[in-house]
Amino acid sequence: MPPDEAEHRRQWVAGTLFAGLAVGDRIRTGGFEVTPALSLEFARLYDPQPMHLDDAAGRASVFGELVSSGWQTMAITMRLVVDARLFGEAPLIGLGLDQARFLRPVKPGDALRVETEILSMTPSRIRPDRGTAQVKVVTLNQKDMPVLEQQWTMLLLAAG
Amino acid sequence: MPPDEAEHRRQWVAGTLFAGLAVGDRIRTGGFEVTPALSLEFARLYDPQPMHLDDAAGRASVFGELVSSGWQTMAITMRLVVDARLFGEAPLIGLGLDQARFLRPVKPGDALRVETEILSMTPSRIRPDRGTAQVKVVTLNQKDMPVLEQQWTMLLLAAG
Repeated sequence: MPPDEAEHRRQWVAGTLFAGLAVGDRIRTGGFEVTPALSLEFARLYDPQPMHLDDAAGRASVFGELVSSGWQTMAITMRLVVDARLFGEAPLIGLGLDQARFLRPVKPGDALRVETEILSMTPSRIRPDRGTAQVKVVTLNQKDMPVLEQQWTMLLLAAG
Repeated sequence: MPPDEAEHRRQWVAGTLFAGLAVGDRIRTGGFEVTPALSLEFARLYDPQPMHLDDAAGRASVFGELVSSGWQTMAITMRLVVDARLFGEAPLIGLGLDQARFLRPVKPGDALRVETEILSMTPSRIRPDRGTAQVKVVTLNQKDMPVLEQQWTMLLLAAG
């Protein structure tokens, strides 16, 4: 890249535009309990499969017990990251996600928390007040076992 | 692969174990209206950012208007695919997802539908009653514009 672009990139990564954010930053969020009522409410609306709705069907399923919807795990992950203010005052706007893996089932009554790490930050070539960040996001249960991992591509917007 | 494995795979793909499913199969689901009330309810619980909660904040955001959470778009996509019985009688169990891209914002009042295509089916090497399927999943709005595309990796289970 030309020298001025390299300098822009250096300042950008150094936090001139996104003060307080840097590659390697890690956050640990608070917790969120997947109560049986919340699990059922989500499943009824968004994932009405017997293994999420009914104890006996859960026991008869490949999981051997009632389990929550993986899509609710994703939604709760977002809630925890929003509460943790991953980007400070800037909004959390997802452009996409990759390498999402459901590693273990989440059960009603589990409590989830999230760990994030900023893997990269890339300035926009045409909008100096914007860029993208790749963020590794791991969701864990109350036994500290990962239940979901994924990589987010987020839009970065300079404040004000 | 050895001949017996090749034959197993041929029968598998031919639907001996998963009758009615084949690579290239496409499904178009019904529709789901993202009512303002549902949009707000989801955002309050899972993505409480101002641009999802408040008209004025939405207008002041990069979107220029109130928008729904992308995680709700994902959840609604699942609901539509569950209702469409993508795998017939077999459950829809996600192992992971890749290449998810939020292509356009979804606004309260939009109506979503989904188109799917089975990209590949791969038998398990150790459990002949199981396998995986890669499925392309595109979510569209009422103007037939794609709002979300993604690729699911699903567990395939032979019916009882």
